[in-house]
Amino acid sequence: MPQPSASFSVTVRVELDDPRGIAEVTRVLTERGAVITALDTIESRAGHLVVDVTCNAVDEVHADELHKALDALEGTRVRAMSDRTLLLHLGGVLQVASKVPLRTRDDLSMAYTPGVARVSEAIRNDPAAARNLTIRRNAVAVVTDGSAVLGLGNIGPAAALPVMEGKAILFKRFADVDAWPLCLATQDPDEIVRAVEIIAPVFGGINLEDIAAPRCFEIERRLRERLDIPVFHDDQHGTAIVVLAALLNALRVVGKRLEDVRIVIVGLGAAGVAIARLLLAEGVRDLIAVDVDGIVTPDDPGLDPARREIAEASNPRNIRGDLPEAMEGADAVIGVSRRGVLKAEHLERMAPRSVVFALANPEPEVDPEIARRFAEVVATGRSDEPNQINNVLVFPGFFRGLLDANAREITLAMERAAAHALAAIVAPDELSPAYIVPTVFNPRVAPAIAKAVAGAITDS
Amino acid sequence: MPQPSASFSVTVRVELDDPRGIAEVTRVLTERGAVITALDTIESRAGHLVVDVTCNAVDEVHADELHKALDALEGTRVRAMSDRTLLLHLGGVLQVASKVPLRTRDDLSMAYTPGVARVSEAIRNDPAAARNLTIRRNAVAVVTDGSAVLGLGNIGPAAALPVMEGKAILFKRFADVDAWPLCLATQDPDEIVRAVEIIAPVFGGINLEDIAAPRCFEIERRLRERLDIPVFHDDQHGTAIVVLAALLNALRVVGKRLEDVRIVIVGLGAAGVAIARLLLAEGVRDLIAVDVDGIVTPDDPGLDPARREIAEASNPRNIRGDLPEAMEGADAVIGVSRRGVLKAEHLERMAPRSVVFALANPEPEVDPEIARRFAEVVATGRSDEPNQINNVLVFPGFFRGLLDANAREITLAMERAAAHALAAIVAPDELSPAYIVPTVFNPRVAPAIAKAVAGAITDS
Repeated sequence: MPQPSASFSVTVRVELDDPRGIAEVTRVLTERGAVITALDTIESRAGHLVVDVTCNAVDEVHADELHKALDALEGTRVRAMSDRTLLLHLGGVLQVASKVPLRTRDDLSMAYTPGVARVSEAIRNDPAAARNLTIRRNAVAVVTDGSAVLGLGNIGPAAALPVMEGKAILFKRFADVDAWPLCLATQDPDEIVRAVEIIAPVFGGINLEDIAAPRCFEIERRLRERLDIPVFHDDQHGTAIVVLAALLNALRVVGKRLEDVRIVIVGLGAAGVAIARLLLAEGVRDLIAVDVDGIVTPDDPGLDPARREIAEASNPRNIRGDLPEAMEGADAVIGVSRRGVLKAEHLERMAPRSVVFALANPEPEVDPEIARRFAEVVATGRSDEPNQINNVLVFPGFFRGLLDANAREITLAMERAAAHALAAIVAPDELSPAYIVPTVFNPRVAPAIAKAVAGAITDS
Repeated sequence: MPQPSASFSVTVRVELDDPRGIAEVTRVLTERGAVITALDTIESRAGHLVVDVTCNAVDEVHADELHKALDALEGTRVRAMSDRTLLLHLGGVLQVASKVPLRTRDDLSMAYTPGVARVSEAIRNDPAAARNLTIRRNAVAVVTDGSAVLGLGNIGPAAALPVMEGKAILFKRFADVDAWPLCLATQDPDEIVRAVEIIAPVFGGINLEDIAAPRCFEIERRLRERLDIPVFHDDQHGTAIVVLAALLNALRVVGKRLEDVRIVIVGLGAAGVAIARLLLAEGVRDLIAVDVDGIVTPDDPGLDPARREIAEASNPRNIRGDLPEAMEGADAVIGVSRRGVLKAEHLERMAPRSVVFALANPEPEVDPEIARRFAEVVATGRSDEPNQINNVLVFPGFFRGLLDANAREITLAMERAAAHALAAIVAPDELSPAYIVPTVFNPRVAPAIAKAVAGAITDS
């Protein structure tokens, strides 16, 4: 059952004929499941009180219900109800700022004309100087076509922008990377590739985001071939890295070795493919991938190249069938699919001391409470459960490392190094079934990942 | 003769065996034409002094000369000499910043997932909401292909980036517009048009910059046809607006009316064409445009459509020939060409009480000191002369107005309104031959232009 949360926080402006009515207001809200977080008096005089009540609700239906319940109170009128998340996003959440003062004419003459001409000349004479003399060394483009945004699907570039803005400010907050959102008005792979290539001169890295599979694989591959800056598809690699980190720690908790375990991946979209690739690179031997059509095998003629690669490298025991067959004796299952796909009858087939990652957002493949009946370690994408598997743990630090090292490409070695660095943030004596990944606010996370990524470049 | 300026400021770190030698250092620098602006002691002990001397020089040759002169002093060694403009641009001059706090998990859940999904849904359900719920309402793309950057020519996208960064921070500083630079790795008009179209969903306006004529005309026209946000080519429209403003005030100074004067434009590139268009729209009747091939006339078969339009609408007296013929009896000449094009023998042909705008950068078409012998009002693009004609006076406020009014296109009416608003910043009793345009730091400029632009939308 979804809980009230800050992500659905509303402020209700209530007008009361009798100030004593405020107790009724809070009672009604609390009884109906709202969590009151603030109460501010706006106007107060004899026989008249206006208050702003801020409370966490569950969703829109719940908020409507609260609105009606307040309206039904005698001597009480709701003047307005506002969604705090929408208010926060008014005018967008990011901005451009100058790094230099522009107070005097001399400042202008150095930051802009005529002085800036000399900076341009220096780059014309030595193109490598662009790294030092421009924002390129710290700038990342967050690029989407709006085709697979969160759980919302193909909502297009305009509606995707708030998500990309949010991503950009996380880049800044956690790793001081200057990320700028670009939401493309095309979903044609050729056009996307060419557009990104054309805008690349300003950026030291490209973060692809929320592009639907399978075209995300082709777009990434072609961009990596053409560009001399790293191209990262967060839905793939960010997810894969944080999953590997969490799995390394989960296996430590249950006392199993990666080489020995049987792993099932449910869902072979962008994330599933990347997780499978990274686990295989890390040394997983027994991996089964299950898609909507059942266990993925190389004899399926309908597979795109990315899925075919996984089909050929997985399923060494050559199991046929669907999810139930795949789950037989599994030590870990990683769901990157959709709500409700994993059921009790699947989980009960797993080996003892098993691990369940149910990562569908916002609703996981299985209720974590049910999963915990069968598995020793359970992780989800939810922030209100232990073990939140969240890409925010990875992408800021990963790009920090790429930019610091002037990386031109991304390798599986870098991804593996990042996962190990993230896992190592949780000390052996801290590890427990309820603590396999650090919190996103842990300040050691981004620097550790950045260092690992840069180190993996030097090594290769 | 070029003067030492802050745009070429260097810091010299000098090591002295005898602290008393510092007097020699400053003497040598000053004698050789440097202007010392700061002196900082870095180390000081018996028989050893290290100082940083910051001074304005003329250019690289001059800086080298200063370096050698100091090295030649006995007991004095130059440890390092650094160019302050290059230092200022280290790492670039702009950054991305968050407008919202990200301190707690609740902050994250509103700025990013899961809360942000609701913002995306609101836009999906009502696309017009993107204006309020994203950065779009305040974001402008500064787009170049690097083909005509300042006086440097076709230096390409990477070397153009410092200029676009500078432009972006001016947007922020003078009108609180969030501008992001995009330097395109193509100079093909079809590709440029399509790339800008594809990246448009994030922006409320497009500022084209330093794109060579004549393709800049075609690119702008096609983008204006296809996009529902305003497209402004600053080299054209920004220049035209500030020139018209300056001309309005210059004619007030010399007591002539726009409808009566003879005007010559020298140079028919991006700026020349736009100035001609705007002057004709404003009511100028006698305009002659002179290009490298002489006076532009409609019977020239080699004209591109933009120049042809000007050829057909200008030269009512049907004068044939070159610059000398055009200048006969001219009341005003506007040079948007290159150094040295206007000579004394041209200027002496002008009417009494004439106006000379010599706007080539960094070196004007004629030395302003010579121009002042013939003309009553002289203006240049230089910051060290009176009457600096600088686009910075226009583009920030112009876009502020466009964004505030949610403008979808740019009209000549808006450009004229902006020019009149800019001219009106100089009060009638302030007007003089040496003061026809306000300084870029005048805080009334951007709001006045913004208001005029928004007003011109309402009017149309």
